[in-house]
Amino acid sequence: MNIYSSKLVENAVNEFSRLPGIGKKTALRLVLHILKKDNPVAEALGNSIIKMRSEVQYCRICHTLSDSDICVICSDGKRQKSIICVVEDIRDMMAIENTGQYNGVYHVLGGIISPMEGIGPNDLNIGSLVERAKGGSITEVIMALPTTIEGDTTNFYIYKKLKELGPDITTIARGIAIGDELEYTDEVTLGRSILNRMPYEKTLTK
Amino acid sequence: MNIYSSKLVENAVNEFSRLPGIGKKTALRLVLHILKKDNPVAEALGNSIIKMRSEVQYCRICHTLSDSDICVICSDGKRQKSIICVVEDIRDMMAIENTGQYNGVYHVLGGIISPMEGIGPNDLNIGSLVERAKGGSITEVIMALPTTIEGDTTNFYIYKKLKELGPDITTIARGIAIGDELEYTDEVTLGRSILNRMPYEKTLTK
Repeated sequence: MNIYSSKLVENAVNEFSRLPGIGKKTALRLVLHILKKDNPVAEALGNSIIKMRSEVQYCRICHTLSDSDICVICSDGKRQKSIICVVEDIRDMMAIENTGQYNGVYHVLGGIISPMEGIGPNDLNIGSLVERAKGGSITEVIMALPTTIEGDTTNFYIYKKLKELGPDITTIARGIAIGDELEYTDEVTLGRSILNRMPYEKTLTK
Repeated sequence: MNIYSSKLVENAVNEFSRLPGIGKKTALRLVLHILKKDNPVAEALGNSIIKMRSEVQYCRICHTLSDSDICVICSDGKRQKSIICVVEDIRDMMAIENTGQYNGVYHVLGGIISPMEGIGPNDLNIGSLVERAKGGSITEVIMALPTTIEGDTTNFYIYKKLKELGPDITTIARGIAIGDELEYTDEVTLGRSILNRMPYEKTLTK
């Protein structure tokens, strides 16, 4: 039975409820909210979604989301290009940017090695990280992956790939409680953990 | 400080977080989800929002959301036009439609009388309800407003306006617990309450 008096409303509700964590009730609430607002408000939301999806790309160097071939961080003359911070995804990169403590560049892996989920090294942006390190201008690679078995595995895999290539390999300080997620850590702790990073080898001998 | 590497992503996050109950974190989660999907998925969502907002209208008769001048219920030859169910908003109408127990038509007030929120009778679609009743073809008006002081006030106000005009004025049975919201009531109880409606006067002598 169709409980909607409007197909247009029904369509919008269905589209919203495809999003994660949004059920039919929430979708309807959002739709009724939009209907109360002026036309331009709906257009701004709708167009921002369409434009973003069709125009956003991945930075050719660090693989973060970017409006152009090379992202604003990689093309920023004031950032230290010799230091690369390796993160799992764009959210972790944003969390570090938010601390204002880091002036290097990034490398977004797009995930971590997880045999359980069938994610191997070749599914991640590890090859391009090795290529960047091969250039010889990289002095330090900071590992900022989650403190989980998968994170440790990925750390170790990248460490083995990079250690012969010259750069120091460090990890952010474990001031962050084991098991906590980077993106939810408070800025002070996260900022401190960037400043207090230590050689990767040290974490192995614990 | 700008933590986004992409203006497009930032815009989309900002637009999403204007919606009620959606913060920046949730908005980013939705945006990253959309980016993982194909282009047409984003277009379907974006266009459904824009199209709905620009094309949806209020039914000239019952004031529900409609794709045309007169809604599918008011223009349905199989619905009993002599019985009108008065509801606060479109969600309550949808809840009643969902029971499959009701074959009359509706009148959406667009709110209820609430001095606290500064909503008076003239802010609601009450005048047009009186006009409908004046036509003489309406035999029954079923009040399905919330069981609150505001709902009772609105019931009584409409009762006084309509009682000289001829139609029986009934209310849905109070099988629904006082204070509970119509839209969250289970279908059986809500359906029963439509079938067991009783004369409005009876509720006054309690």
